[in-house]
Amino acid sequence: MQHIEIATLLKSEPSLHEVSVKGWVRSFRSNRFIALNDGSTIKNIQCVVDFEKFEEEILKKITVGAAIHVRGLLVESQGQGQAVEIQVSKVEILGEANPEEVKLTILSPKRHSIETLREQAHLRVRTNTFSAVMRTRSKLAFAVHDYFQKNGFNYMNTPVITGSDAEGAGEMFRLSSLDPKNPPLNEDGSINYKEDFFGKETNLTVSGQLEAETYAMGLGKVYTFGPTFRAENSNTSRHLAEFWMIEPEVAFNDLDANMDLAEDFIKYIITYALENCADDLEFLEERLFQDEKNKPQAERSEMKLREKLQFILDNNFKRVTYTEAIEILKRSKPNQKKKFKYIIEEWGADLQSEHERFLVEKHFKCPVILFDYPANIKAFYMRLNEDGKTVRAMDVLFPGIGEIVGGSQREERYDVLKSKMESMGIDEKELWWYLELRKFGTAVHSGFGLGFERMVQFVTGMGNIRDVIPYPRTPGNAEF
Amino acid sequence: MQHIEIATLLKSEPSLHEVSVKGWVRSFRSNRFIALNDGSTIKNIQCVVDFEKFEEEILKKITVGAAIHVRGLLVESQGQGQAVEIQVSKVEILGEANPEEVKLTILSPKRHSIETLREQAHLRVRTNTFSAVMRTRSKLAFAVHDYFQKNGFNYMNTPVITGSDAEGAGEMFRLSSLDPKNPPLNEDGSINYKEDFFGKETNLTVSGQLEAETYAMGLGKVYTFGPTFRAENSNTSRHLAEFWMIEPEVAFNDLDANMDLAEDFIKYIITYALENCADDLEFLEERLFQDEKNKPQAERSEMKLREKLQFILDNNFKRVTYTEAIEILKRSKPNQKKKFKYIIEEWGADLQSEHERFLVEKHFKCPVILFDYPANIKAFYMRLNEDGKTVRAMDVLFPGIGEIVGGSQREERYDVLKSKMESMGIDEKELWWYLELRKFGTAVHSGFGLGFERMVQFVTGMGNIRDVIPYPRTPGNAEF
Repeated sequence: MQHIEIATLLKSEPSLHEVSVKGWVRSFRSNRFIALNDGSTIKNIQCVVDFEKFEEEILKKITVGAAIHVRGLLVESQGQGQAVEIQVSKVEILGEANPEEVKLTILSPKRHSIETLREQAHLRVRTNTFSAVMRTRSKLAFAVHDYFQKNGFNYMNTPVITGSDAEGAGEMFRLSSLDPKNPPLNEDGSINYKEDFFGKETNLTVSGQLEAETYAMGLGKVYTFGPTFRAENSNTSRHLAEFWMIEPEVAFNDLDANMDLAEDFIKYIITYALENCADDLEFLEERLFQDEKNKPQAERSEMKLREKLQFILDNNFKRVTYTEAIEILKRSKPNQKKKFKYIIEEWGADLQSEHERFLVEKHFKCPVILFDYPANIKAFYMRLNEDGKTVRAMDVLFPGIGEIVGGSQREERYDVLKSKMESMGIDEKELWWYLELRKFGTAVHSGFGLGFERMVQFVTGMGNIRDVIPYPRTPGNAEF
Repeated sequence: MQHIEIATLLKSEPSLHEVSVKGWVRSFRSNRFIALNDGSTIKNIQCVVDFEKFEEEILKKITVGAAIHVRGLLVESQGQGQAVEIQVSKVEILGEANPEEVKLTILSPKRHSIETLREQAHLRVRTNTFSAVMRTRSKLAFAVHDYFQKNGFNYMNTPVITGSDAEGAGEMFRLSSLDPKNPPLNEDGSINYKEDFFGKETNLTVSGQLEAETYAMGLGKVYTFGPTFRAENSNTSRHLAEFWMIEPEVAFNDLDANMDLAEDFIKYIITYALENCADDLEFLEERLFQDEKNKPQAERSEMKLREKLQFILDNNFKRVTYTEAIEILKRSKPNQKKKFKYIIEEWGADLQSEHERFLVEKHFKCPVILFDYPANIKAFYMRLNEDGKTVRAMDVLFPGIGEIVGGSQREERYDVLKSKMESMGIDEKELWWYLELRKFGTAVHSGFGLGFERMVQFVTGMGNIRDVIPYPRTPGNAEF
């Protein structure tokens, strides 16, 4: 008889047919009630054992963490909290879990710190919190594909290994197959990368945008969803050295259309999560609520988790120019009373997280899209406005998390791009292909990047980005 | 007025409302017929220009490769090959394409070799062949997610950067942030990787399987779909240094269930492609047919492209043990007549591509799943059979392409796995977490890997794997 998933079983009607289920023991109370979980849902199925009918030898192996196979009738539950339960007729022990050894792990039924859970990342997905986070992550990832495919975008895979270091989004990891101790040298003493695997120096990509642009200019609408890398020594709750990024790029879209796309896309995936992860989000909401009880009032969230998600759906993202934002910030209380760490004195200042959060959480009290930033604090490929000093850049700012999307209309004019690259010291020989796009049927186009883990953090309410990816990579940590 | 995608327009009824469309000129015949493409479909929309109504200045800029914006009425087409066409009232040149410069690129309207197209990988997606391949690739990728999500699997992202080099699937790329010329050394003269970014030596992953197993043992059913890497000097039409792999892993699945899953999954994504990529596959089928006309009869495909795909759907995959296969091969004509490059003499021989193709194409004439291979030619993690000499490995073999899937039931027994690792020299200290899975509620589980690009090759009929990924990475090549 084929076993059934617990998620399916919990939605079934009681029946006189025997059912079969496999999973891991979460608890075994009074030698009678097994709470069994198989990962298909956060909910356990209650399996009721008549201990007089089973051998002691079997019963004592039904311990927390053990894998078992249960057969029996699915009956209406007598207890609270579930509609159905299994009246067990047969138990088979698939894999034991020695209670003395379990005690030393996070599988043991007591409260473990989030840091301890992180150290046992190979086991943490068996806890309620992490199984809920990872199921939600999976659904969100699907929502990303679902949205873009429904809207006529083509998924493309941009290269992870890149021969270009001109992307300018951050520090890169170097890749090599040369003997690390005695690499071949050129006559001038530099390393001879011509002898390396790719015949040149290579790095891990920091963004697929430039390649995505080449495909948008042929397929029209494309998106990437792949790993990107930063070799930056940022030990924060918001940074990973390896993270997944989503980058749509659309031919003929100007900045307004780009903003529309970002807002529509974000609302779609949040709606998808609310509709498809109800049980997990209910659990995560309660977890966050309990967690914040230990915090001072001022640090607690104003809204509960799902209320916050609904809030995003119910509000138009407020679109504000950088120039307007600077005026608001200059006149703001925290600026005048010098409560900001970085005081805003004049136009041109780079905005810090504190400023973004002030705008979103205190001033506008809704998601904000800032646009038309000063050219000299933004990347070379952003389209210069007619004023000659701002570019068509945009950042989407969210409550509690700050920047969640960064994007722009791209500079489509050959001469403007070329001179911008020259003035910023970007080697034309490396990006000849990027420049060439502007020679053959160039057109207005736009795109943005969304760090997937930040979105998962936002939706699940997890405070640390290391807890929303299975095996986080951070400075000093590449375990598992 | 919002512009409409050509794919949508071609399905529309003629109308008296003006439509707006943007795209790139594929051809402009007789100063009258513009074939316009925007990447949303392989089909062009015909835009009919009454040249007397337009200025010469505009008309001469409507050249191959130029980006234009066309407005006009959507009317019933007078010509053949399309139901509707646009009666142009307005043309705006968005981006010119100088004909003299276009001549030097693959955008020029003549036959270019596939190698030349590869050198201009940033432009090749504007050709019919590559736009068809890449749209199909996108649909196939979505089919992968669609299949697994519908069947209750959780998508997971396994790490690209790995501190472990014990996975054993092939040569790895080394990653570092140390000064490549003067790396810090230990007292014994070896490189001090403790000072590197992650505090240890790190490589690019060759497989996410081991990490996927940890998640299957908590979430039940998981799959990965991400980039994997091989630092192998294989300059063939079937190998990439960077490619995308799909790896499902399922708790409680034995090898039979694993075979069922592989067959069902493959049939689903092929069905999806046939249903959702009809225009592109029609084009690619004709392309392949024309391409093979230049080949000697013996090298031509026996079936047309879509016929071959339908053939996979219509046949059960034949399941054959390695031992049976060896008997068949030993007695086969090419073996007896010494036509094989590698003559099969006895049980234990590793099968080569020529043997796999003989079994699939000549003997069984259908897709084949070989299983129960000799333990000593397979990886350490595969489950040992009761005979003590074979393991529960499986390979799915396809006509024309050979191995497309490799998988196994995993060794779930702690002691057996531990001694296998010892005997194969795999450091327990590196894979402590993998071994530990077998301590806490171990269970039968299985999974497999499918190289995504090989599947795209199979479905699109492209002969070289470099032509089914946007920017291929191969020895000596990391351009773009």
